[in-house]
Amino acid sequence: ISAPSGLFLNSAPEQLCATNKVALLIGNLSYQNHPQLKAPMVDVYDLSNLLQQLNFKVVSLLDLTESEMRNAVDEFLLLLHKGVYGLLYYAGHGYENYGNSFMVPVDAPNPYRSANCLCVQSILKLMQEKETGLNVFLLDMCRKRNFHDDSAPNNVLRVTANIVFGYATCQDAEAFELSSTGFTNGVFVKFLKKRLMEDEKITVLLDRVAEDMGQFDATKGKQALEIRSSLAERRALTDPILPGDSADLAHSRQWAKAHELPETMSLHFDCGAQIKLGFAAEFSNVLVIYTHIIKKPEDMSFCQAHVTDFSLDLDVDPK
Amino acid sequence: ISAPSGLFLNSAPEQLCATNKVALLIGNLSYQNHPQLKAPMVDVYDLSNLLQQLNFKVVSLLDLTESEMRNAVDEFLLLLHKGVYGLLYYAGHGYENYGNSFMVPVDAPNPYRSANCLCVQSILKLMQEKETGLNVFLLDMCRKRNFHDDSAPNNVLRVTANIVFGYATCQDAEAFELSSTGFTNGVFVKFLKKRLMEDEKITVLLDRVAEDMGQFDATKGKQALEIRSSLAERRALTDPILPGDSADLAHSRQWAKAHELPETMSLHFDCGAQIKLGFAAEFSNVLVIYTHIIKKPEDMSFCQAHVTDFSLDLDVDPK
Repeated sequence: ISAPSGLFLNSAPEQLCATNKVALLIGNLSYQNHPQLKAPMVDVYDLSNLLQQLNFKVVSLLDLTESEMRNAVDEFLLLLHKGVYGLLYYAGHGYENYGNSFMVPVDAPNPYRSANCLCVQSILKLMQEKETGLNVFLLDMCRKRNFHDDSAPNNVLRVTANIVFGYATCQDAEAFELSSTGFTNGVFVKFLKKRLMEDEKITVLLDRVAEDMGQFDATKGKQALEIRSSLAERRALTDPILPGDSADLAHSRQWAKAHELPETMSLHFDCGAQIKLGFAAEFSNVLVIYTHIIKKPEDMSFCQAHVTDFSLDLDVDPK
Repeated sequence: ISAPSGLFLNSAPEQLCATNKVALLIGNLSYQNHPQLKAPMVDVYDLSNLLQQLNFKVVSLLDLTESEMRNAVDEFLLLLHKGVYGLLYYAGHGYENYGNSFMVPVDAPNPYRSANCLCVQSILKLMQEKETGLNVFLLDMCRKRNFHDDSAPNNVLRVTANIVFGYATCQDAEAFELSSTGFTNGVFVKFLKKRLMEDEKITVLLDRVAEDMGQFDATKGKQALEIRSSLAERRALTDPILPGDSADLAHSRQWAKAHELPETMSLHFDCGAQIKLGFAAEFSNVLVIYTHIIKKPEDMSFCQAHVTDFSLDLDVDPK
């Protein structure tokens, strides 16, 4: 009697763990020189919520210029170290040349070239240097060839067997957002968010999203989810995080500090009016400040509260 | 009470069918100007057997020159029509430039360029024109960049949501065959053949092969199976074939005729000796003829049988 080969020893599979889970979500909508998009805001918002429930440290950013995108990626890379699950979601304009995917910042000129854009495969190469445990790229963008760009970057990647690409659409094809009134998801996230919390290997999960999306008549023959994976282990977004080492703790504190909200504050005015200021962060780079009149002196006929005064060192766009 | 959405109505999934299943298997070993390979013969042989059990019409070919490869692909395309599952397995030298995979014929010069080789994506484009039901490419070859080739073919594919690539290795990486004495599989088929008969969506099956291969220490960090898929339906290699239409029957007869073996024949010689000739087809382009002495006259001390005489219009290599 010979012992069964290891391959067929289907004992309970060992639980795979992340040393940490970090997600960078970028949604570009308000393009300066290109058609505006609608869905990325809701897409980033929804995915941010779901990924936080999966214990991801989420940095979610809207409308980034090229330098802001490069900064965001640098900060993201600082949060990665050995065994971390890194996830990049990008919604916005994009293109794919020679197998490389490019994300287009909101200030990109028209036409744009690779020098104006961020190459996803270059980011992957830097993630590999951090010895990440899993690299997931969810690219919600078009993959048409950019004929204005003739450069062919040569990012030679390592064989780490832990790379998963979920493309919102096939090579040479466009990704769609449905025209509708009000807030709505793009097609990819519409289907992705229904499956994202499932406790399955990420490739299996994306494969199911591909099937769901395949039943959607509006985009049949135009958009189909494409998976590209070398993932050799049964890693899932639901995998637990190992109790942190010191490097991880430092990084986590850094992330937490950046995401700390000011406490609600109450402002008393000499006239007797009392105003409350509240803070909410829908995105890492969007702080929502809301005002609320708590007390109005009885002899005052009209009282209005606005957020108007900001210190000059803040990058503020009070829209 | 609202009706459940179609997406979540998990009733028994409808059985998906092929109108036919056709596989082209090419194994190139005996390169004229490049290192010889060993594993492709056994790999093609093993896969051919398994695919035939899955009711594929298999054309399995060894050691093809460029013109022979182009002919083989043309014949393969003739067997395809609407709804057919087409599978291409290639083992041999190869390279990948700008996202396009190239198969290297045995007579390719050194160095070779795209004009000497066959581009897999060009074949896929022709398969799409046949409205095939599933397109599977199992590429058992290296995917290093070929710096002698600067052309970037532009095969704009359609969004058919039925394309599956199983690469024996990652982009920019090499595929290995284990050095060993005797007949042996390459690394990819060693693991693929253990799963190929499973009744699973082809993407799920390949994902399992990727996991199996990931546990193989000999190639860890060097070779990892990569999947690339846009398959939106739960199509499997085990799917049944629909009762044939007339186009299909004609194609099937053509295939069957090409794979008909001569019947065993008995040769009687004047001296009284009787020799049996048998025929076996291990590959579509390799006919094995074996001889067997059935009767030897008692007064004959020595009798030997060889296959020696062939008509001149046969392309024969009696090795």
